[in-house]
Amino acid sequence: MEKVKIGIIGSTGYTGMELVRILENHPRADILFLGANTHHGKNISTFLPNLKFKKNLKIRKNSDIYQIKNIDVIFSCLPNGQLDSILKKIKKMDALIIDLSADYRLSKRLNDKWYKNRKNEKDYKNFQYLIPEINGKEFDSKKNIANPGCYATSILLGLAPIIKTIKKNDSIIVDCKSGISGAGRSGKVQHIFSEANENLSIYNAGVHRHMPEIESMIYKISNKKINILMVPHLLPVTRGIMSNIYIKSSKVVDIKKTFKLFDEFYSKSYFVKVYKKSLPTLKDVQSTNFCNIGMKLFHDKKTLMVSSVIDNLVKGASGQAVQNMNLLLGFEEKLGL
Amino acid sequence: MEKVKIGIIGSTGYTGMELVRILENHPRADILFLGANTHHGKNISTFLPNLKFKKNLKIRKNSDIYQIKNIDVIFSCLPNGQLDSILKKIKKMDALIIDLSADYRLSKRLNDKWYKNRKNEKDYKNFQYLIPEINGKEFDSKKNIANPGCYATSILLGLAPIIKTIKKNDSIIVDCKSGISGAGRSGKVQHIFSEANENLSIYNAGVHRHMPEIESMIYKISNKKINILMVPHLLPVTRGIMSNIYIKSSKVVDIKKTFKLFDEFYSKSYFVKVYKKSLPTLKDVQSTNFCNIGMKLFHDKKTLMVSSVIDNLVKGASGQAVQNMNLLLGFEEKLGL
Amino acid sequence: MEKVKIGIIGSTGYTGMELVRILENHPRADILFLGANTHHGKNISTFLPNLKFKKNLKIRKNSDIYQIKNIDVIFSCLPNGQLDSILKKIKKMDALIIDLSADYRLSKRLNDKWYKNRKNEKDYKNFQYLIPEINGKEFDSKKNIANPGCYATSILLGLAPIIKTIKKNDSIIVDCKSGISGAGRSGKVQHIFSEANENLSIYNAGVHRHMPEIESMIYKISNKKINILMVPHLLPVTRGIMSNIYIKSSKVVDIKKTFKLFDEFYSKSYFVKVYKKSLPTLKDVQSTNFCNIGMKLFHDKKTLMVSSVIDNLVKGASGQAVQNMNLLLGFEEKLGL
Amino acid sequence: MEKVKIGIIGSTGYTGMELVRILENHPRADILFLGANTHHGKNISTFLPNLKFKKNLKIRKNSDIYQIKNIDVIFSCLPNGQLDSILKKIKKMDALIIDLSADYRLSKRLNDKWYKNRKNEKDYKNFQYLIPEINGKEFDSKKNIANPGCYATSILLGLAPIIKTIKKNDSIIVDCKSGISGAGRSGKVQHIFSEANENLSIYNAGVHRHMPEIESMIYKISNKKINILMVPHLLPVTRGIMSNIYIKSSKVVDIKKTFKLFDEFYSKSYFVKVYKKSLPTLKDVQSTNFCNIGMKLFHDKKTLMVSSVIDNLVKGASGQAVQNMNLLLGFEEKLGL
Repeated sequence: MEKVKIGIIGSTGYTGMELVRILENHPRADILFLGANTHHGKNISTFLPNLKFKKNLKIRKNSDIYQIKNIDVIFSCLPNGQLDSILKKIKKMDALIIDLSADYRLSKRLNDKWYKNRKNEKDYKNFQYLIPEINGKEFDSKKNIANPGCYATSILLGLAPIIKTIKKNDSIIVDCKSGISGAGRSGKVQHIFSEANENLSIYNAGVHRHMPEIESMIYKISNKKINILMVPHLLPVTRGIMSNIYIKSSKVVDIKKTFKLFDEFYSKSYFVKVYKKSLPTLKDVQSTNFCNIGMKLFHDKKTLMVSSVIDNLVKGASGQAVQNMNLLLGFEEKLGL
Repeated sequence: MEKVKIGIIGSTGYTGMELVRILENHPRADILFLGANTHHGKNISTFLPNLKFKKNLKIRKNSDIYQIKNIDVIFSCLPNGQLDSILKKIKKMDALIIDLSADYRLSKRLNDKWYKNRKNEKDYKNFQYLIPEINGKEFDSKKNIANPGCYATSILLGLAPIIKTIKKNDSIIVDCKSGISGAGRSGKVQHIFSEANENLSIYNAGVHRHMPEIESMIYKISNKKINILMVPHLLPVTRGIMSNIYIKSSKVVDIKKTFKLFDEFYSKSYFVKVYKKSLPTLKDVQSTNFCNIGMKLFHDKKTLMVSSVIDNLVKGASGQAVQNMNLLLGFEEKLGL
Repeated sequence: MEKVKIGIIGSTGYTGMELVRILENHPRADILFLGANTHHGKNISTFLPNLKFKKNLKIRKNSDIYQIKNIDVIFSCLPNGQLDSILKKIKKMDALIIDLSADYRLSKRLNDKWYKNRKNEKDYKNFQYLIPEINGKEFDSKKNIANPGCYATSILLGLAPIIKTIKKNDSIIVDCKSGISGAGRSGKVQHIFSEANENLSIYNAGVHRHMPEIESMIYKISNKKINILMVPHLLPVTRGIMSNIYIKSSKVVDIKKTFKLFDEFYSKSYFVKVYKKSLPTLKDVQSTNFCNIGMKLFHDKKTLMVSSVIDNLVKGASGQAVQNMNLLLGFEEKLGL
Repeated sequence: MEKVKIGIIGSTGYTGMELVRILENHPRADILFLGANTHHGKNISTFLPNLKFKKNLKIRKNSDIYQIKNIDVIFSCLPNGQLDSILKKIKKMDALIIDLSADYRLSKRLNDKWYKNRKNEKDYKNFQYLIPEINGKEFDSKKNIANPGCYATSILLGLAPIIKTIKKNDSIIVDCKSGISGAGRSGKVQHIFSEANENLSIYNAGVHRHMPEIESMIYKISNKKINILMVPHLLPVTRGIMSNIYIKSSKVVDIKKTFKLFDEFYSKSYFVKVYKKSLPTLKDVQSTNFCNIGMKLFHDKKTLMVSSVIDNLVKGASGQAVQNMNLLLGFEEKLGL
């Protein structure tokens, strides 16, 4: 069967390496190009010594991708704000672009508020935000992908089935914890082992940039304005996100109906598992593309916790990117995942 | 200066060992007896090889404590439900008893509901529940101490200053995470390294036994019934608890007034630090008797998070036990801590 | 293509679960039976929540395996000493038995010296000790497999290519470190997180039971008696073994020749990688069946260190067991691995 | 009692902060100055939030130390090679200088070979290398201190008592493992949590710069040239070093005599513990100034392992620096430790 030709820019960070790991074993993918800002000339095998590569590609300059002909899909794992400067040239290659950064997830108005980078207004329209289990039926095969954020994925999957039961303008508390790979592969003091190990710390409480991303998506699927109050933590594990979503209702919640809403919503979703009798742990999803979800209605009968776990590098980034590629190219959703 | 003669029963678990560590350096304490259910005949130095002991006591049977004369203070670090069977004899020794278990923290009615052990009703009256920073002024020097639980300490210290601003019958969500030493020093499969490391798991969501403990204390200090909805997590660190307390108000919260309430409440408390510009991390309190507290009012202006961190073995157990001893014996509160 | 029917006894420990994980994705394997000493009636998915199972088998009594017809391969992941009591019945099933315990690795004489269990002398002859890269050419397709130990695998793969350069009766020092999953899935106090985390401890220095296993194999392939002096450490990681083998020669070592010996010895071995310019780390092999080997000749020109790393649960146990199955059944060596 | 006035330059790294922690509780020390290359104007309490400071000093430029009058002791925790440029001015302050870097540990000849920095030859003579338990009797109260390295301390303390039993020109293998705080508090990719956690890696095998430091000291105390072959590992713990020293003798070793040599050598050393029946673990010494030593004679009767553990930041750096200060100022050796 013919293979899809793939180029990856920004390939030496954690999401880039995870993408290489997945695509190297994807039966329809053929990686032709690996770019990065640094490390030019090194073999990819030095970054992923636990894999055996069919072709041991060398890391090249990101801009060298223009020289590769007939690329079908370009994954960008560049940091936020870097794709814009080369997008014009990349678009000419006529490939499907899947951007794992936050650059085209928000509207221009929200982007300008929450991120420093400024981009051409038209480009926003060429990207669609896609979580296959939520809005995967409405994809536009001609548009590129603004791949969802890791926290946003875990929270939206935990909220989507019950969004209609939530009141307009309500505030929803989300206490969420992420493994340290979520902070990327750069050497910041707060992420070195001696600082992060045996510790737990809150960062960006109430001001995390996935909040507007989640609120936008909720508005898109339900036409409701809802405040997401996120409290993200840096957790001393490498991979995994747990998001506890606390929803207070004014009236008594019927937990059976709630489970039914989840079961129906995810009845055809291979990658979402709803737990009935227990709550998921990080180990349940690490290194997989699954999102596992559990629930607890408290004894006041009005407060519900939905706990949603994913691997931040897989379902929260590179796995979902491949799932989105599968969707747009008409492959089986779980191919290679 | 004359020293206080001390006996410890149940001394080989984590709280027992932490108590030995603290008292060994306490200028007014002299440990005369160390008991345990097992390990009889071993030197205490084998359990705490990182200390150099003035006297290297041997571990004895707990019941051997009756043979020691003139003991002034008995600390019990026995597991829940074990003190009752020997309490009658121990009481005859006429020493101050400081019990680190949950046995006498609740009323008999609540204890019978939440714990399996049944005890003599009279004994409840001989114990007082004491968090020095909250109800330390009202102690009764003739009563024993039911030393507070670790989660309860962190949550009550985070709530006490603002309890009057909370409505009756309100539900308060607490997302809390504990290091694994909180689970004790017994070999349960879920606590072995290969299970707990690189993981995060919720346990006893909404049914943790510190909930009634906290609710009772809130009722005692404020006469209000409030529901505490706890979601405890097992965190892959050895020591430390972080409790995020989420309080939703019906009207706009004045954060300056809130800080003022905390500052006033803890103006004389050596062991509580209130952060103004940041939120505390576990490393800020590990191996100390401090409780560090930070706050975040979200952009809806009505939802407040109070984040309270302690070391579960020190302020959450043995450190507070020594602080309570200091209080009852008239020593300086921070002596030896 | 027809599938091989497989039964696993002792399947709920770490090697059992790792075997299930591997075989579930093996294109020629069909697991029909999962036995264990406990947990009867539970679904295997509760032990491996991060997998999606084609058939969600229930855990049964180990002895129920007699009821399954036409099983082709039986893997025993029972603890040392337990297979003997049921071996007689199991042998009647006429399946290939692959035993992951230490029961039939040694000669009866050595087994009786190093292990407490006593077994029928004849049974020893029905088992062969097989590391495919070392003695895989000489397998007997009619004999069962005594699957090699984890430390032994890492050390023998590091020594085999240069064994002829080592003098008779020489003592070889091996400083080796294992992740805690090597200690199994039972709740021993020394393996709980609070004891093992942030720690490093030596155990069984000079008396580890893999020493005679290694010495026997060296004698088998080289006819030399060599003393292996092992110093095993418990390392605060879940998976992985690093064995540093220190070899002192009486004359100057030619490092180029040494590399050549390794290259030749492993020229056809898919699962061994020899590093030329660096030394392998645990991350290089975790969750893979690879054994990665590096070398350092010190400036005295006579002391050589060979550093060999594997994943203790894969190449050190279940992966090598499947590799041995592939070998005996005539499948491609790396099938499913 | 009058206090010693202390200034610390380079105070915001791990050894600097550990020094502050120790001296803050030292009954004869009064810290007057804290300098650093960055962080000017911040309070020291932001770096050590788990301490309560008598004076909450602000971090100043290192060169501001010249403005402080009557300083008695200056600790330099600057990185290697930085003290030289300010030494001339600092010497004029007429204080005891205790340098925790490697700058003046070696002879000029060896320093020029192993380190890039070049310094004035005369300055070497003003510094003495001091491990109190080994050459503490021969200190010169007029000379400054070149405080020993962490690995060097652990290895020299394990070798000193038996150095006379080792043959000239012999090679001694040392397999040693260090916690990650030993790599300092700068953000290098290889030290971030996601890289170092769940990993073990060798670095500088056979070329670590503590090798000449150890060899020099051995020559000084025994007049013997001995090759130290070090294999250092980066261990996924924050604090602690374990050094396994392997010594092969040509004749049978008498282990009783060996223990006697250790006991005699350390008979007056408060900070060295020799284990008779077990081997020390990292937890036995973390956060203390102890060096704990165990031994194992292998069954070949000729190979001896000495295993020596310390906390790299205490006995391996700041603790020993304070111990050396105590020694030179005539205080009790263990004061404040």
